[in-house]
Amino acid sequence: MKYPLAIEKLVRLLQNLPGVGRRTAERYAFNFLLEWEGEELFELSGLLSEMQSTIKQCSICSALTDSAECVFCSDSLRRRDVLCIVSSPREVFSIENTKEYRGLYHVLGGLLSPLDGRGDEVLELHKLTARLASQEIKEIVLALDSTLEGDTTSLYLKQELEAYPVTVSRLAFGLPVGSSLEYVDGGTLARAFLGRATF
Amino acid sequence: MKYPLAIEKLVRLLQNLPGVGRRTAERYAFNFLLEWEGEELFELSGLLSEMQSTIKQCSICSALTDSAECVFCSDSLRRRDVLCIVSSPREVFSIENTKEYRGLYHVLGGLLSPLDGRGDEVLELHKLTARLASQEIKEIVLALDSTLEGDTTSLYLKQELEAYPVTVSRLAFGLPVGSSLEYVDGGTLARAFLGRATF
Repeated sequence: MKYPLAIEKLVRLLQNLPGVGRRTAERYAFNFLLEWEGEELFELSGLLSEMQSTIKQCSICSALTDSAECVFCSDSLRRRDVLCIVSSPREVFSIENTKEYRGLYHVLGGLLSPLDGRGDEVLELHKLTARLASQEIKEIVLALDSTLEGDTTSLYLKQELEAYPVTVSRLAFGLPVGSSLEYVDGGTLARAFLGRATF
Repeated sequence: MKYPLAIEKLVRLLQNLPGVGRRTAERYAFNFLLEWEGEELFELSGLLSEMQSTIKQCSICSALTDSAECVFCSDSLRRRDVLCIVSSPREVFSIENTKEYRGLYHVLGGLLSPLDGRGDEVLELHKLTARLASQEIKEIVLALDSTLEGDTTSLYLKQELEAYPVTVSRLAFGLPVGSSLEYVDGGTLARAFLGRATF
């Protein structure tokens, strides 16, 4: 039994969302149809059609912004000599939420993944080197995933950055806060041991 | 750290979906923004803004339809003397998918719930009685939830329908197909016992 065409199309499209299969997509579609106010649907519809033109990547750091320069690059109170490198615009917000960092950001176009055919062109290194040439950066913090792709990219960037007079640091490895030793995997535990600090 | 306004609005709206909290809404919002093609977003946007005017409830049975009469009411091959009563338009599709039923449907406006102040006006009984007066219905199958609200509504309808020359039946209770006795609750097991049939 097929649904009316508009519902069927909606269900198919919603399945593009991460972690959403057929059943969840159906649930969402019927929720839109039967439970949402007309106004809410119009607002959502408007946001979706306009968002890719409203929200752009900052021309300097590639963070998401709704004006020409992002709130980070244009904030005169932030330290301008530290650069935190992340691989996706969303991670800027995650780091910002920790309230531990008050420097600038630099968003790469992705992570290296030789197996998937993603070489160093995804990193858009010319943008980074342009900043290093024009701004006085003293420290670069690599805040990349601790996965094969993230580690490969960190290593690659470390080598590329050796030509510049910057300190390159990397996020610490160790126990997640609130974790039981019992459930922490061996690799993490080993890194936590290696990185132990005087208490 | 607040997101740019358009993202924040989108995240808030998406939290209206069933089972979607702040984190899932953020995940969806960034997926729309960073992973979707512009075309897909426009299509979704169009469907959402138009769907409540494209998809209507059938004037006879209240099932969802994109034309004046639904595919069920207008299908001359279906039995016209059996009526299956459900509480929401979506359930029509669930029953239809079983391929066990080839009669007509009747969708109520909801289920009775005295605790939530939903009285018999939600059932829109005049629509049902109008059908009973004009069509020659021999059997009515109550296909309502086996919850407090569903049971209350089934009982109420049974009483209301006593005045009409129709057989009223109700979906069977018993073991869900594929279930282990170990995990079946006592109430279901009791009903399955009571309803046991010669094998």
